[in-house]
Formats: sequence, structure tokens, C-alpha cells
Amino acid sequence: MFSPLIKELMESLRCLPGVGPRSSQRMALHLLEKDRDGALRLAKALIEAAEGVGRCHSCRTLCESQLCDICSHPGREKATLCVVETPSDVMALEQAGGFSGRYFVLMGHLSPIDGIGPDDIGITDLLDRVAEDKVKEVILATNPTVEGEATAHYIAEELKSMGVEASRIAHGVPLGGELEYVDGGTLAHALAGRRKLEL
Amino acid sequence: MFSPLIKELMESLRCLPGVGPRSSQRMALHLLEKDRDGALRLAKALIEAAEGVGRCHSCRTLCESQLCDICSHPGREKATLCVVETPSDVMALEQAGGFSGRYFVLMGHLSPIDGIGPDDIGITDLLDRVAEDKVKEVILATNPTVEGEATAHYIAEELKSMGVEASRIAHGVPLGGELEYVDGGTLAHALAGRRKLEL
Repeated sequence: MFSPLIKELMESLRCLPGVGPRSSQRMALHLLEKDRDGALRLAKALIEAAEGVGRCHSCRTLCESQLCDICSHPGREKATLCVVETPSDVMALEQAGGFSGRYFVLMGHLSPIDGIGPDDIGITDLLDRVAEDKVKEVILATNPTVEGEATAHYIAEELKSMGVEASRIAHGVPLGGELEYVDGGTLAHALAGRRKLEL
Repeated sequence: MFSPLIKELMESLRCLPGVGPRSSQRMALHLLEKDRDGALRLAKALIEAAEGVGRCHSCRTLCESQLCDICSHPGREKATLCVVETPSDVMALEQAGGFSGRYFVLMGHLSPIDGIGPDDIGITDLLDRVAEDKVKEVILATNPTVEGEATAHYIAEELKSMGVEASRIAHGVPLGGELEYVDGGTLAHALAGRRKLEL
């Protein structure tokens, strides 16, 4: 029904996560009817980002320079390193505030079933960096999923043999949540991880 | 927090309808982490469509050739013309099937408040085409909204002075719907538009 160029645009839009046939049609027609400048700007941004963005040489996050803003910031402590799975996790932690150390972005997690081993998530680089920067504490902030936990454990074991302290972010009841609606696993973690009230 | 190229990509993705700050971040990181080929393909499709897609010279729909597939199809009757607001409406009617005439796409509706008058939605072209193709019936399939109704009425008045029959698509209870949940306006239309059962 639509002409080839429009069909190809609809097809290509489906590479975006969460975009199915209906939304891709809506997006394609919106751009063609009302925002061709936006379409051209998006095309330029896509090409520049796809060709220009690489990895930070220090923390492996996505960025186009050798070092990302955080790794090149002189005020960030080298002695504390927070290990996360993705660049979005860095963003979330930075927005939460309160962390003044540096990050290491695995860009994934261990997943033997998908053939993702320690080398694919840069564990060697991580251990090299820990040794090089004389890191005192590594905070493991991988996701609280089976793969995330396994990855955290694997890294903790490796660090133990190097004599470096590893900690895991706390799991428990989220702020603003109601106990009634929190799942059993989380509640068990919250109980096991209870802290003495210091009054 | 993100590098300039990534930020620009996130900003540009927001030209897509329904994409806010969270989804644009998710989309940008997904493309950069997992699908750079898809990003480049999308960029190419955007440029080609934004630069190549024009309007069908006969029905005004979006297409890159002089005449769209429907207007250039010899089997479609010229005597019946269906007037719709957007190319998606043509798609919806074609998928429903049962119409063998041709279309005229207004690419909008009358909206004095936004400064959209008859010339902006090609009413002159429509009337020229009705005269040229000796159209017998014009089916007004604009949306059942205030603007769509006003547009249908305006066109019907113009056609009346030319002595051409105009009809409006039926409004009523949608198939599969439950009467209980249908709004009052639609029910009133459904009652007023009742048809004698021919047994």
C-alpha cells in the first residue's frame, strides 16, 4: 500500500526497541508529514554516533573520546571502583548522587548460555585496572538478577585472590514501597541484611 | 553524563512521536551497544525518504513516484472517490477491503484556529479532479471529530453546487463492542442512522 521508500523507512524504524509495526507506521508518517528536518537531523545523529562513539579506554563505557567525563575528572577518587553492567546504570547512580569514586562498565553480564564469558565483559581489564589504580574497594553494582549475581560473585572471587575488598550494593525493600507488595526474595534479603539502629 | 554525540542522538530521537527522555535514552544505548548496522540502515532510510518522498499528483498521498500505486492501478474505478485525512486512513480502508474506487488524501483537516483553510488541504485540487474524472459519488471518510465533520460538511456543500453526490461513512456502534460501553454521541448516531432489516 505504501511506496518502497516509506516501506523501507517503516522497516528500519523497527530496529528501535519497543517499536512494532503500528508504531513504526505512525513514526514514519509523522516524520514525512510533519517533521522532515527532524528526520534529517536524526539521520545525521545516527551516522555520527554509530561511526564516532567508541569505548572509554579506562571504564569501557560508551563515549567518543579516549576517556569519558568521569574517568577524566580529577576530583573522582581512584581508590573506589563501582562495577555496573551498562552505561544507563552509571547514569542512574550518578543521578542518585552520593558516589564520588569511579566506574567500570562491563557492558553486559556473564551468561554462559549465550556464550558470554569473563573476557567478553572485560574482567581482565577490570583486574588490571584494580591493580594499576591501587583500588581499595570494589562495589559490585550489577543487577539483582541471576546473571548479575553470578557476575558479582565471579568478580568477588577474583578480587579475593588479589586481596582487594569487594562489596555488593544492598538489596532490600525500596523506599516508598509497601511491605505488603514486596516479593518474598526481596523481603528475605531485607531481613537478612538488617542493620542495628544507631541512636 | 553522556558524551556529546550520544546526547545529540538522544535529543534527535525525540522527534519521533511517543518518544520521551527515558525511551530516547533506551533507544540510543540499544543502537550503540547492540545494533549499529540497524542505526546506519535507519539513517539511510530517513535521508532517502525525507528527500525522495513527495506527493501523488492525483490523490496527494505520500509517495515517491508521480502517481501512487492506487491512482496508477487501471482496475480502480474513477467514478467513486473516497476522501480521507491521512495516508494511514487509506491503509486502514484498504486493509478492510471492499472499496474499489480511488482516494483523495487531504493530508489534514480544516482547522481555522491553526490557520488551516481549504487551500491547505487541497480542496481546489479535489474539485478539479471530481470534474475531470467525472466522479459520480464522493464518499467523505474524514474522522468523526469536530474538525473532520466540519471538513466533510464543507466539501459536501462545494460538491452540491457542482451537482455531485456526496455521502458520509456511517457512524454507529463498532462491531464487537458492547452497547453498555459505547458513548452517548455514538449511540445517538447509531439510532438516527438505523436501517430497515431486509428479510
